[in-house]
Amino acid sequence: MRTILIIGAGKSTSSLVRFLLDHSEAENIKLKIADLSLDNAKKLARNHKNAEAMALDIFEEDQREKAIQDADIVISMLPARFHIQVAKDCVKFNKNMVTASYVSKEMEALDGDVKANGLTFMNEIGVDPGIDHMSAMQVLDSIREKGGKMLMFESFTGGLVAPESDDNLWHYKFTWNPRNVVVAGQGGAAEFIQEGQYKYIPYQRLFRRTEFLQIPKYGRFEGLANRNSLAYRSIYGLEDIPTIYRGTLRRVGFSKAWNVFVQLGVTDDTYTMQDTENMSYREFINSFLPYSPTDSVELKLRQSMKIDQDDLIWDKLEELDIFNPKKKIGLKDATPAQALQKILEEKWTLKPDDKDMIVMYHKFGYELNGEKKQIDSTMVSIGEDQTYTAMAKTVGLPVGIATLKILNGEITKKGVLRPIHPEVYNPILKELENFNIKFEEREREYLGYNPDNLN
Amino acid sequence: MRTILIIGAGKSTSSLVRFLLDHSEAENIKLKIADLSLDNAKKLARNHKNAEAMALDIFEEDQREKAIQDADIVISMLPARFHIQVAKDCVKFNKNMVTASYVSKEMEALDGDVKANGLTFMNEIGVDPGIDHMSAMQVLDSIREKGGKMLMFESFTGGLVAPESDDNLWHYKFTWNPRNVVVAGQGGAAEFIQEGQYKYIPYQRLFRRTEFLQIPKYGRFEGLANRNSLAYRSIYGLEDIPTIYRGTLRRVGFSKAWNVFVQLGVTDDTYTMQDTENMSYREFINSFLPYSPTDSVELKLRQSMKIDQDDLIWDKLEELDIFNPKKKIGLKDATPAQALQKILEEKWTLKPDDKDMIVMYHKFGYELNGEKKQIDSTMVSIGEDQTYTAMAKTVGLPVGIATLKILNGEITKKGVLRPIHPEVYNPILKELENFNIKFEEREREYLGYNPDNLN
Repeated sequence: MRTILIIGAGKSTSSLVRFLLDHSEAENIKLKIADLSLDNAKKLARNHKNAEAMALDIFEEDQREKAIQDADIVISMLPARFHIQVAKDCVKFNKNMVTASYVSKEMEALDGDVKANGLTFMNEIGVDPGIDHMSAMQVLDSIREKGGKMLMFESFTGGLVAPESDDNLWHYKFTWNPRNVVVAGQGGAAEFIQEGQYKYIPYQRLFRRTEFLQIPKYGRFEGLANRNSLAYRSIYGLEDIPTIYRGTLRRVGFSKAWNVFVQLGVTDDTYTMQDTENMSYREFINSFLPYSPTDSVELKLRQSMKIDQDDLIWDKLEELDIFNPKKKIGLKDATPAQALQKILEEKWTLKPDDKDMIVMYHKFGYELNGEKKQIDSTMVSIGEDQTYTAMAKTVGLPVGIATLKILNGEITKKGVLRPIHPEVYNPILKELENFNIKFEEREREYLGYNPDNLN
Repeated sequence: MRTILIIGAGKSTSSLVRFLLDHSEAENIKLKIADLSLDNAKKLARNHKNAEAMALDIFEEDQREKAIQDADIVISMLPARFHIQVAKDCVKFNKNMVTASYVSKEMEALDGDVKANGLTFMNEIGVDPGIDHMSAMQVLDSIREKGGKMLMFESFTGGLVAPESDDNLWHYKFTWNPRNVVVAGQGGAAEFIQEGQYKYIPYQRLFRRTEFLQIPKYGRFEGLANRNSLAYRSIYGLEDIPTIYRGTLRRVGFSKAWNVFVQLGVTDDTYTMQDTENMSYREFINSFLPYSPTDSVELKLRQSMKIDQDDLIWDKLEELDIFNPKKKIGLKDATPAQALQKILEEKWTLKPDDKDMIVMYHKFGYELNGEKKQIDSTMVSIGEDQTYTAMAKTVGLPVGIATLKILNGEITKKGVLRPIHPEVYNPILKELENFNIKFEEREREYLGYNPDNLN
């Protein structure tokens, strides 16, 4: 029996555990699921005979070292900032490791030691980062192999509600950490490059600078820029590409309405407000509007945000019940973002039978034999239920597949890695197709940004 | 001879030095002017027989301690963060001290030692903070003495260009540190209270939430909220006041046009842009607009900011030459704010004969004998020239007057102080009138925010 240790039994671990347990007999695997909460770990283990739940506090060095020593490979599903301690132990005890998180500077710094010990630390092998890397690199490498020259790479990912469960005007529900959705885009301007020109979008313009994207059978989406697209140039070997842009997907109309919250200031997470415990939703919104005892909160909001009487944005705001004078925020010393999250969670929490959806859209513009071409590649994954969500599947399955392939010596590359090498992404993408996680490619006319060469 | 040591010979020190030297014979004073640059110190000393220029590096402990030991009182005109080292030495060697800066936490913490040694550390005795405190407290205390109950306190200060030197469409020039003007309002929402309701204005709305103020003979100004008005409740003894609001003054129309820069994102000082050294003004603005090779920077800006063809904002923007394709930013690794400052400095730098202006406006609403009343108090000070600016006068004169009064035992209050006590503000305000720094008071009908009691 080989032992796989999973540290961290969060929401995203369900599909990973199911995948590994489904393969446990054939692969001769014992799965140890370790979490601060033994209950969490037990829930995932489901009394499966090849699964063992254990309580583990990663800040207890003895416990942590013992668990890692006993394993053949370690998967860390902890919050990203806690990986490094596990990683250092894996170096110390010569264990391979897998995470779905971005490679931190500390993790990167282990690369020399990891290589010296002949180990594989596979990171960024969830959905975003993860499936985005693999699916993009597969197309990029195939274009480059044919001698094509990349002109443009755009890539968008969204965690959304599935069409069959989409029953609100925002066409949005929380399918992941709500806080990240409320503060999305904060902390610096979005930076990217288009036809050689560097572009910057500040937070206050981010939700007004969207572009539309169409996915066959799924309709229209809108993409808004992520903070840093430029770092992907070196990761993908696209140092000289004139256009690179990464973004987040929402359903059409979300961003324009969300911008009301951005402009009001209710997404700010940097300071706490006075007396949020007893504050009504209406008072909360009114706190960000001019004082006037003779005008309604509604009219002040319409006027200050210039929302016409018949603008659908208004229906979206009313749907959230933000003008309710009776409902209380009920949180002590809340930031505006925390108060807003409270209001949104009431409406945007998935119902028991709701399903989520992960959508990915890549555009590849390139020149081959003097001709400009474009490939659009899209992937849509729908969750099964609220345990095996699309998010849990698209994060957990690549992690699980990579883990088995490292364990079985099918992936042998050494070092602190991302899944950007053909020997890694090809077999994993192929296996993901068994789980209906697959990309549809369409060849399109390359339009670029200046189809008629006008100036 | 008594020795006054001034540490820091910056721009704001001219009027202070002149005031003290003018009094040096009668008061039997020797003035030591210490600066990192001996040249700076010498310029201020003007070979006056009672002045001595010296080079002083405040990080050289021996030098610093010696200079402070030799003095009878110490004025620190250093940047605020450097006061604390001087303050600790003043405690050590039993010297009184004066600064024009806000009381820092570190300074506050010295209060016990300062009192124990029987010393006076007078802070916040420039213009803002300084004259604002003194003039506000004088009226507040007089209302309270009569038995009045405060309903409202609003206070605005602006550093502007004098009317006779006002020759641009923004009615603005840099009369102080340009960087502070470019980043003004950043770093958190403005927070204040109006008729018992806490209000928050995020940066992206700050320049759209102005109010107009009229000063006889000087016309209209607009006020925009400062970040923290609430702290003044405890300083002024206004804990229960239902309305308190502090703000900054500009000429009417400034804020609406400045908001274009805020929305574009060009006031951001938190990240550096690519290749700003060779970037033209036009390219700089274009970096914040959507990519489109077929549309002009002008049209993209008009469209994205919804600026009509005949809107005066446009003339303001054109006046700054922001669309010039030839002029270069010429700064390496500049932040957007630094690049914008470079552009603005070309147009907003005072010409040799230009004069500056300090404007202050207080509104006091109160109830006395069942009647609601209002006093508006205004002060305008115009600079003499580019050495003895209004800024240098209004900062330096209260510092100088306070220094003499402490030295002469006329101000005897002990501890780390602000000028909020009658024994301090009354004599200083009286002496400031000799320099034409005086407040005009007008009694007005109290309007509050709901004159007709409508709801």
